[in-house]
Parts: sequence; structure tokens; C-alpha cells
Amino acid sequence: MAGSVLGERFQISTWGESHGVSLGVVVDGCPAGISLCEADIQAFLDRRKPGETKYATPRKEGDVVTILSGVFEGKTTGTPIAMMVSNTSQKSKDYSEIAGIYRPGHADYTFDAKYGFRDYRGGGRSSGRETIGRVAAGAIAMKILGELGIRITAYTRQIGPFVCREEAMSPENIEKSPLKMPDLEKSQEAEEYLEQKMQEHDSAGGIVECIVSGMPAGVGEPVFGKLDAVLAGHLFSIGAVKGVEIGAGFAVAEKTGSENNDGFYMDAKGRVKKSTNFAGGILGGISDGDDIVIRAAFKPTPSIFQSQKTVNREGGEVEVQIKGRHDPVIVPRAVVVVEAMTALAIVDRLFVGMSARMDKIRDFYDF
Amino acid sequence: MAGSVLGERFQISTWGESHGVSLGVVVDGCPAGISLCEADIQAFLDRRKPGETKYATPRKEGDVVTILSGVFEGKTTGTPIAMMVSNTSQKSKDYSEIAGIYRPGHADYTFDAKYGFRDYRGGGRSSGRETIGRVAAGAIAMKILGELGIRITAYTRQIGPFVCREEAMSPENIEKSPLKMPDLEKSQEAEEYLEQKMQEHDSAGGIVECIVSGMPAGVGEPVFGKLDAVLAGHLFSIGAVKGVEIGAGFAVAEKTGSENNDGFYMDAKGRVKKSTNFAGGILGGISDGDDIVIRAAFKPTPSIFQSQKTVNREGGEVEVQIKGRHDPVIVPRAVVVVEAMTALAIVDRLFVGMSARMDKIRDFYDF
Amino acid sequence: MAGSVLGERFQISTWGESHGVSLGVVVDGCPAGISLCEADIQAFLDRRKPGETKYATPRKEGDVVTILSGVFEGKTTGTPIAMMVSNTSQKSKDYSEIAGIYRPGHADYTFDAKYGFRDYRGGGRSSGRETIGRVAAGAIAMKILGELGIRITAYTRQIGPFVCREEAMSPENIEKSPLKMPDLEKSQEAEEYLEQKMQEHDSAGGIVECIVSGMPAGVGEPVFGKLDAVLAGHLFSIGAVKGVEIGAGFAVAEKTGSENNDGFYMDAKGRVKKSTNFAGGILGGISDGDDIVIRAAFKPTPSIFQSQKTVNREGGEVEVQIKGRHDPVIVPRAVVVVEAMTALAIVDRLFVGMSARMDKIRDFYDF
Amino acid sequence: MAGSVLGERFQISTWGESHGVSLGVVVDGCPAGISLCEADIQAFLDRRKPGETKYATPRKEGDVVTILSGVFEGKTTGTPIAMMVSNTSQKSKDYSEIAGIYRPGHADYTFDAKYGFRDYRGGGRSSGRETIGRVAAGAIAMKILGELGIRITAYTRQIGPFVCREEAMSPENIEKSPLKMPDLEKSQEAEEYLEQKMQEHDSAGGIVECIVSGMPAGVGEPVFGKLDAVLAGHLFSIGAVKGVEIGAGFAVAEKTGSENNDGFYMDAKGRVKKSTNFAGGILGGISDGDDIVIRAAFKPTPSIFQSQKTVNREGGEVEVQIKGRHDPVIVPRAVVVVEAMTALAIVDRLFVGMSARMDKIRDFYDF
Repeated sequence: MAGSVLGERFQISTWGESHGVSLGVVVDGCPAGISLCEADIQAFLDRRKPGETKYATPRKEGDVVTILSGVFEGKTTGTPIAMMVSNTSQKSKDYSEIAGIYRPGHADYTFDAKYGFRDYRGGGRSSGRETIGRVAAGAIAMKILGELGIRITAYTRQIGPFVCREEAMSPENIEKSPLKMPDLEKSQEAEEYLEQKMQEHDSAGGIVECIVSGMPAGVGEPVFGKLDAVLAGHLFSIGAVKGVEIGAGFAVAEKTGSENNDGFYMDAKGRVKKSTNFAGGILGGISDGDDIVIRAAFKPTPSIFQSQKTVNREGGEVEVQIKGRHDPVIVPRAVVVVEAMTALAIVDRLFVGMSARMDKIRDFYDF
Repeated sequence: MAGSVLGERFQISTWGESHGVSLGVVVDGCPAGISLCEADIQAFLDRRKPGETKYATPRKEGDVVTILSGVFEGKTTGTPIAMMVSNTSQKSKDYSEIAGIYRPGHADYTFDAKYGFRDYRGGGRSSGRETIGRVAAGAIAMKILGELGIRITAYTRQIGPFVCREEAMSPENIEKSPLKMPDLEKSQEAEEYLEQKMQEHDSAGGIVECIVSGMPAGVGEPVFGKLDAVLAGHLFSIGAVKGVEIGAGFAVAEKTGSENNDGFYMDAKGRVKKSTNFAGGILGGISDGDDIVIRAAFKPTPSIFQSQKTVNREGGEVEVQIKGRHDPVIVPRAVVVVEAMTALAIVDRLFVGMSARMDKIRDFYDF
Repeated sequence: MAGSVLGERFQISTWGESHGVSLGVVVDGCPAGISLCEADIQAFLDRRKPGETKYATPRKEGDVVTILSGVFEGKTTGTPIAMMVSNTSQKSKDYSEIAGIYRPGHADYTFDAKYGFRDYRGGGRSSGRETIGRVAAGAIAMKILGELGIRITAYTRQIGPFVCREEAMSPENIEKSPLKMPDLEKSQEAEEYLEQKMQEHDSAGGIVECIVSGMPAGVGEPVFGKLDAVLAGHLFSIGAVKGVEIGAGFAVAEKTGSENNDGFYMDAKGRVKKSTNFAGGILGGISDGDDIVIRAAFKPTPSIFQSQKTVNREGGEVEVQIKGRHDPVIVPRAVVVVEAMTALAIVDRLFVGMSARMDKIRDFYDF
Repeated sequence: MAGSVLGERFQISTWGESHGVSLGVVVDGCPAGISLCEADIQAFLDRRKPGETKYATPRKEGDVVTILSGVFEGKTTGTPIAMMVSNTSQKSKDYSEIAGIYRPGHADYTFDAKYGFRDYRGGGRSSGRETIGRVAAGAIAMKILGELGIRITAYTRQIGPFVCREEAMSPENIEKSPLKMPDLEKSQEAEEYLEQKMQEHDSAGGIVECIVSGMPAGVGEPVFGKLDAVLAGHLFSIGAVKGVEIGAGFAVAEKTGSENNDGFYMDAKGRVKKSTNFAGGILGGISDGDDIVIRAAFKPTPSIFQSQKTVNREGGEVEVQIKGRHDPVIVPRAVVVVEAMTALAIVDRLFVGMSARMDKIRDFYDF
């Protein structure tokens, strides 16, 4: 792939820049026969939008999606589904004065190093608006998973030093919190922390946690196509992610085997279950039927309204004061992006795994 | 890909099981004209071997590699390089009694769920011996990088609670430490910790850190083919890895933008440099010319010599007491695997990126 | 890939149906720094349009292309280029009566067999309008090749029994002929033949020939990624193509080695040349620097205005009389599609081949 | 892919040169649970061997295959199957005098142009011995197809001017003919023709035809992943193939729509059938349930024992007289290679197509 195509059997191609005409995605490999309309997609895009909170960029975009192909009489046809969202609120002039300057923490310098020049308007292709295509495609993946009884729920686990407590988290709190934190007490503390950072013209980072429930056992390829490897690659492809962990994650470094091994038992329905889930639902790269638990660490938004030292394209050292409209914390808006990328990974692995057993193949085709 | 093929332009196919005839790899896409002999590969395989320390499995394998194709008169020809290592010290009978049992923390159950049955001898394809093919291929990738002046060094950063201190680490200590820890004082403490775990019939986890120096800026694709996303996917494909982070990693959650942004400056040679490296050498998925810093967390070896609760294939609940030869800690032997996977990712991204600019393409072909 | 994505390093995703909202393509992997505007694309789309001749469907579409991303200040940025053409002249009601019927020679039955249902309006995704995305992407590939001095010219070599004579063909005749035949006498005869077929409510087939000149030697991968294998796969992916041959093609069956081998000699500039070109510019899957000569056979348009025997979705045997707007011969309009697919194959192989030699790689990156 | 890897879900990596240590293949993506032993593979390799006829190279190789991985207790495990054949009868010194010379009709010059140097011993990687890996992998594909009731039969349709007559062909004749021609009278004539060519120190070409029966309808992706496009690409990747056609093939150029359209009818079992099969079993890139009929044209062996004009690496014009052991006609030995490549294409498309319909996916996983 050349960079903007993802997946093997459920394959997406995203396109578009922050300040271009429009952004979108083509989804190839969506099975035929799924009910799909624009409202299915819009619901996810709306969760990605800045919304009404003060913790998000004041740039207001309708982000109304149009389905251009691949759906006939309300159902997917099996052929590519193209979706598009127009840009309507570009303010490119905000960027003209940083056209020749490399903003710290941004991809300005590296794009220049790679391509020889760049679209400097709002980060161009490296903007967070690029995730529109991901979220639109992810909405279709979620629809497929929904038909199979698989549910994905992501939320903000941590902002700055404020971490949701396991015992205080409740799924219904997620949408009650402007920061998408399921522990409302910690959400309140994190809001105060953010207020302070905004006053300091600074920004904050955090962690998104994502749970996949209803997974069948046996999904994922051994060796390189491991389900966790694909999930990690997908999440690391989100701008600002600097770490990914699964199950017990980095804590395994200090655990012993006897503490970390999950014992097996048989449940009342005669299914193999684990008494704990330090593995995070994946053993040897293959789903074990338990919930998949994955976390991604997001760096603080690099666009801060403080003066910073940097250089320009001509090699001069300068001070830069970023303008424009920026989120003081990206984490709450990234929640739906994490869900989308997780859904894309799982659908692709589900489809890839369908030729693993001769008995199943024989059933599939009507021989 | 179907699971055991990796890469786009520098592509490897690994094969072989713990107790099969042999293991190996085919490397497709190695450029022509590189000096290569078996000693180049053997040096890396020898670093992967259990060695003489007591912290590794007593299974002794020569792991002698043979190059079967792709090299002529001491140079690579551009065609596939096949390499093979024979298994000589299999003791399959150690495993016969666990053939029908799902070992906790292992992939026994998930392989069965996926394929309907499994090669139970020593984990079959999910064994750590599968990494022989990775390391052999990685040795070639390291050779290519060496010709370009890129160096990769990995080491054990942490075992159990013992973390090498930044100021006490020295590259020359790595091979002095039986645990590959560059802080010899922490290595000593970790050794004592491991002794204790072995007496308790338990095992330990840890963290491997890997540094890539000499990178040019501009390597990596934006969006999905990001250099960090590919690196993370590669490292997560190593069995036992439960977390990966780059640069400041998970610590970014508690940092602010003003703390985490790396300012740019011009060095004496007129090159763009960063005054800090919290980014870990990658901005927007593309290398910035600074060192790449990446870490992977390894879980404690699941094979422990304690009685554990589990189930068998027939759905009965049983206690299992694992036998065989196992490493009390996998981390020191994983160091060279991390180097190999890192090298494979970087070579592939270097090659993929060669068509990014029209001016460079024009120079390439003799038009 | 899931069917509508093509290429490895210059990768396209096409989308859209005959009677949907619009059709388009995303091109990923286009190098940065190429001048590109909509007129570059439109010129190719205009050649694909029915035009004013009576040998083409009376359906009139403006087929005006919009570039939605990937171009900034008149130059490609290296990021995905999305292009779109709106459908404006759909007459879906022409198709409502054949919704439940399988038209002979069409993909109606096989789409139903594969997907369980189909978009019956004008063939949906299997319509010739699907080639709009290919031609738009091919126009960019042609632009890249033009910068490297590589030229691609396709034309109608044969319609029905009328074959252009080698000695009577002239490139400037191509656009003079309504059938794109460079031998105007044969073009005249073919026109009369077509008139007759149209009166008989019948259709005709033919052969498109394509010449690539200015190729460097050394492009194409050995074994599976052969340049001819990729070209053949690309051309066979055009609907209605039933055969592809290169150089001497099927005639080699009756030739001997002494007749068919092309001898080598040195030209005045000291370059290796072949005294004949039965190989068609490719030896062992790799370009030899000579012109590439390739031909594709197109079947007669299956939509004919005669009564035909067929079945319906319910399994009843029926007679069908096709309505709608159809080309009596597809060949002249396919000429630009053949050029596009050839250009896509060659650009992709050019890019893929850039990591074949260590000496070239060392030059590429500024080490 | 980098050239020697083929397929998406049933993926093979071949390796090895004519005069190297050994040759082989890794098959990744073979489903678990298929009975497989070396005799299954050997049967196909034996059909590829020169055999006892005088129409094949006198080089005698045992070509004994060893399965190195992926099979446990007589069944495939779902993990990579590595297979190897040792070279035992190399006579590299036959080639030393042509090391610096470009043989006409061979890939010597193009390999040099691409890689900067080449393995000159027996053509190295461009040798026909490279097909050993294809045939071994194809044997597994044939085994899978056999379990599904799909049969593939290839044979020599034409050698020189001698074409098997439709009405005189009988499958049981194939193995009776030293040239694998199912029309024994034409086989006899072709043998006499070959005797004459051998006396003239010349060689002959021909056509292989391949029939796939028992195909279900609905296999193949629309647009680029068409079944015919994949088949054509696979066959064109065989060295010496200069043309591929499906069904009526190149003859469609002179046919009319009313002649070429295959009418549909319902058979006694209520299945959709075609009254003719000019389509060759594929409509719109998707199988229609009828036999697939495909043909490939092979050029005459370029190695002839006559003096030929050529150039050497230093740019001097020379005469070359080829020595070594060569087939006067490659076609009969290519029959099993055509079967193998056809089987590989069909298995891959069968597997790729398994996620096309939501209803089937729901059945597949036990939700």
C-alpha cells in the first residue's frame, strides 16, 4: 500500500485534506445485503465533531456525509461504498503566516523532508480532519459487527493525571461526561485541570480504553497477522498516539507468570472461559472469546498558543506563535476514532480468517 | 497476507514449528549486490540462542543456518533468499501428556478454536522457535541498514521491578550482562530477582528498548503506513508482547503540550534538529532524522512449573503441571528479535518510500 | 484486495455504478511535485466519451471531472488524489423491466450468484461506465510517464474481419478514424461492416493494439511480478476482453526458435538493441528497452436489440429484448481504457522496481 | 509483493535457482484439516520432470520433494507448508563460457539491466526449474479443489502447426501421448515435426489448453480482481507464455453479438445453464458455473544449437553457440505448470470470495 489504503479483505482508501474541497473514503469489500443509510454513518461522524463543549476547537463543520455508491435500495451491493464530507469552514488564511515554518510537535518538517513541499493549510493531510474517512468507514464496520453481535465501546480512561477508577466506571456515564469519561468524579477533576491548561495556553494528553465484547474465539492469524498486532498497527496509525497496550499491558513487566496466567474453566453453557483476563482477550494473536481490552496513549495537542522555538524552511531559527482553532485536548474526540479503527481491524481479521478450515470452506460454497 | 508473510517491498515468509523437521524463511525483495554469507546470519542467530546462562531453557540447539538460494559469488542477486535451520534437539515426548490440555497463557486453546486441531509439540507454530526465521531475515535487513549507516541497538531496559537508569546505561555493558541490561548494577539485582523466581517455580517479565540511529528524515508514509504504526505492528507480532510505546510513550498522558513539544533548531552543519526527542524520532508517522526510540513490554513466560487450573479438549476441568525446557524470562533472548523486527520495518519503509518524489524518480531511471 | 483496488505502489481504488450518484477514483502513491489540473484528466475522459459518431451509445454524459484532494497550488502533494464525475443522464426506467432477467453475455447472473442480489440499473458496477475511474487514474499515470519520456499509444487494430495493415498504419490517422483505426482504408471498410451489423440489430468485436515507447530496460519483476503478467492482468480486467497477447503472441505456436529469437546488436550510441522485436519488448518478465507491443481482443457488445433466450431470477425461461442505449462496438471507446490500464501497470512496476539495487538505494537517500 | 510471492489468501513464496543448492516454496494460507503427504506432491513433480521421451532435456533430476513444516499427523495444520527439492545434477561448467554473453530470447540481458549482474548458471532464477515451487504449491491447491469437487485438466492443444481436433480429443489419450496431446493422430504428426526440428537444431512452440470443471457460480471479484484477470496474470507469469485467451478468445474479434452471446436455460435439476460456452465459464469476471476454458501460447525454446548473433557484457558483437541440456519443445512439460497456476488462481479466488455476503458470514462464525 502507498499509505492511505488499509486492510486486506475489508479495505478502505481515505483521502482529503484539512482545507481541501472535501474528504472521504472508499470502502471495498463490504459484504452484500447489509441495510445501510447515511444516518448510520452520520451518527458516528457527529460523535467525532467538536460538539458544544469548550474543550474542543471552535471550528464548526457540519460534516454531513453523502453515500455516493455501493448501496442500492437501502442495502449494500458488495461493490465499493464511496462516502464524502465537504469542507465548509476552512479559514486558510490563519495558516499563511506559518507556511514556511515548522511547528513543533507537528508533521510540517517531516512532510517537507519526504515530499519536498507540503500543503501547509491546517496540516493538510496530517490534520485530524483526515480521520473523517476512518470514522465513516468504521461506522460500516460497526454495522457489520453489530449484525454478528460484537459490540465495541471506547471511552476516555485518563486525562492528564486523572484516571477513571475501575469500580466507578459505568457505560452510561460516557455520554454524560463532556470528556467521555465513565467515572464522572474523575471527569469533573479532569475538566478543572483542562480549564487550567487552557488558561495557561497549554494542552493535555490522555488515554483511551476500548472494549470489544461478543467476540468468537479463533479470530486472528498466528505469527504476523496476529489480531493484537493488527489492532496495535491500526491504533498507532492515529495521529498523536504514542503507545498501545493490550490486557495487562506494560504492567506485565513487573508481574510473574503465576500472577499473569489466566486459568481456564468451563462455564455453565459448556464453553471454555478464563477466570481472569490479563491477556486482554487474545492469546497467541488469536481471540480467546473473552473481551478484548486495548488502550492507546495520546500526546497533548501540539498546537498551543505559547511562543515556541523553531526553524523555518530557509533554515532560520524563529519563534512561532500558533493561531487557528485547536482542541486543548484531543482525547474525547479521539474516542470514536479508536472505536472505528478497532472495528476496521476486527472486521478485516474476521473476513481474512474465513478460509482457515477445510470443513468450513466445504460448507460455504454449495458443492 | 495469510499470516506468515510480512512486508511490502522487503517481504519475508517464515515457516516451521518447534518440533518439526526444520524452520526457515524466504526473503523476497532484497536488493542485488550486497555481500552476504552464512556468518552474517549466524551471528544474529547465535545471539538468539539460549546461551550458557541459567536464565534460559536448557534445550540446546546448534541453530546452524544454511543459505539455499539468492546469493551468487558472495553477493545477493535480487532474487529470493531462502534460509533454513534444522531442529535437532526435539523432545516431543515431553509434550504428549499435555496434547489434550490447554496450557494457561499459551495459544493452545485459541489454535484449537481457529483450526480445529493443533500441533501440540512444544507449541508448534506458536513456539518461540518461530522467531528463528524472523532473526535470519532481520540479519539481512541489518546488513542493508549497515550499508546506509543506520544502526539498531536493543537491550533489556527492565526485568521485573528493576529498571536500567538512563545515566548508568552504557552500550558496551549489554553483552557483559547475562540479561542484556546496559546498567550492570540493575542487571545484578535483576539476576537475584530471577534466581528467586526460579526457586519459586515462577517466571518474570520485562521491557526491551530499541534505538535506531542514523535515520534520514522523511521515511514512513502518512496516514496508515506510518513508520510508528508499522514498527508497532511488527513488535506486537512477537509472541508475549503486550505493549509498545514510542518516545515519551504512555507518559504523554500526563504531560502538557509545552512540556512534550520538541523545539527545532539548526545544528552546526545546517541540519534541522530537535532540542529534545519526546517524539521518539517520528512526527506524523514520518522519521524526523532523530534517533527512533521504541519499547516493548514482554509478559512473564507462561510455562511455569507450578500446578495450574485449566481445561482439556473434552471440556473437563483439570490441573496441569508443565514439563519441558523453558526460559524463566524471555526478555534477554527477545532483544535480538526486537532488533530484527525493527530492522525489517525500517528497510521495508525505506524501500516503499522511494517513489514519493518525482524529482528522485527521474534521477533513478536513466532517462 | 477486495476487487476494486489495484496496484502496489501506485494504487487506485475505483467506485461507482452506471446509474448511481457519481463515479470516481482515489489514487494513492502519486509522487509529489507533478503539475496537475483537471484539464489533464478531462482530455482523457473526453476520449472515452461516446462522442459524435453513430458507432457509439446515444447516451450523452458530460463526464466532467473534479479533483477533490491531493493537489495544492497546481502540484501533486504525494497524498491521495480523489477524482469524481457525476452521473447526469441516467435513464433507469429503461432497465426496470429487465431487473429480474439475466441478459445473455452480461454479468447479471454471476453478480446474483455471488452477492445474492444486484443493482440492475445499466449493469450497475459491471457497466462500462466503471472505466471512468480507470481512465482518470490512467491520465495521471500518463502524466508521470510523460515526465520520464515514456509514451503510450493505443488504437483499433481490428474490427470484425478488418485488420489494419502494418504498412498502411500511421499514428496521425488514429484520430481521423471514427473507429480509431490507423489504416484509413480498413477503417472505411469496417465502418461499412458496422453499418450492416447495426441494421441487423447486431454488434461487432475487435482488437486493440498498444505500443509503449521510450521504456528503459530493467523494469518488471522476475517470476510472478513480471511486467507482461501485470500488463495481461490489467488488460484482462477490462470488461469484454477475452484474450491478450504480447509481441508475436499466439503466432509463436507455429514459429521455430531460430525464427522467433530476436538477435542482439549494439547501436551507434553503444546501447544493446534487438534486430527484431518478436518478444514485444519484454524478456523474462523484464523490459528490454524496446517498444512494448500488446494486444487485447474485445468481444462484440452483448447488448443487442434482437430477441434472445434466457431465464429470470425465478428460474423461468423467457425471451428478452434489450432496450437502453448501447454501443454497436465497444472497441474504439476501449482504446483509451487500454492506454490507461497499460500506463497504470507500467508506473506501478517502475515504482516497485526502485529497490532492486543496493547502489541505487544508496544514492537515493542522502546518506 | 517483491516478485516471488503470489496470492492473497492462499499465498505462495517460491525460491531457488537452476544451479543452486535446492529449490522450493512456502505455502501460507492452506486450510487446516486436509490430508497431505509427500506422495501427493511428488505425483505432480513427476509429471513436470523431463521423463523418458526424447523431446525433453537429457538433464535428469530426481526432484524428490520433502515437506518441512505445516503438516502434523498427516493433516495440514493451517500454518505454512514449506517444501524443498534438492538440485543434484547441476553442470554449471556448461555455462561458464556464456557467462558474459546475452543469449537471444533469454532473460540474460534484462536481468543484468535490472540487477547489475546475474547468476548465469542455467538461467539462474529465470530457469524453467523455478516452476518446481509452483508445481509443488499447485499440487496442494489441486488437493483442496479435489475436496470441493473441482477438477482441472490441461493438455497440449497445439505444437507447431498441429492442432488437436475437438472431435478427436479424449482425456485418456493425454498420458498416452509423449507430447500430452489428447488427439493421438495429431500427436503422431507433431512428433514427426519435432524430430525434424531437432535435426535442424531448432525448436518448436505450441498451445496448452486447460479445463476447470465443477466450478460453483459466483467465484471472482468484479472490476480488478476478476477471475479471468487473475488467471491470465498467473499464466502470463510462466516463462515463455506470449498469449492467453479464455473461451472463444481472440476469435471474438470476428464474431457478432448474436453469435457470441451464450443463451441461458434451466437444466433438469433447476440450475441456470448456458446453451453454449463462448464465455469460457466467466461472465463479468465471475464464474458462471460452466467449465472454465483457458489457453496459453508458449514460444519455441530459445535455447537452440545454432550459431546466433548477439552481444556480450562488454558491448562487443559476438556469435553464440548454446550448449547445455535443453528441451526442443517446452509445451508438454508446461502442461502441469498450467494446471498448477490455474489451481492456485482458483483456490485464491475461492478464499477471497468468502466474505462477499453477510448471510454467509453469519453462518460461518458460531454466533
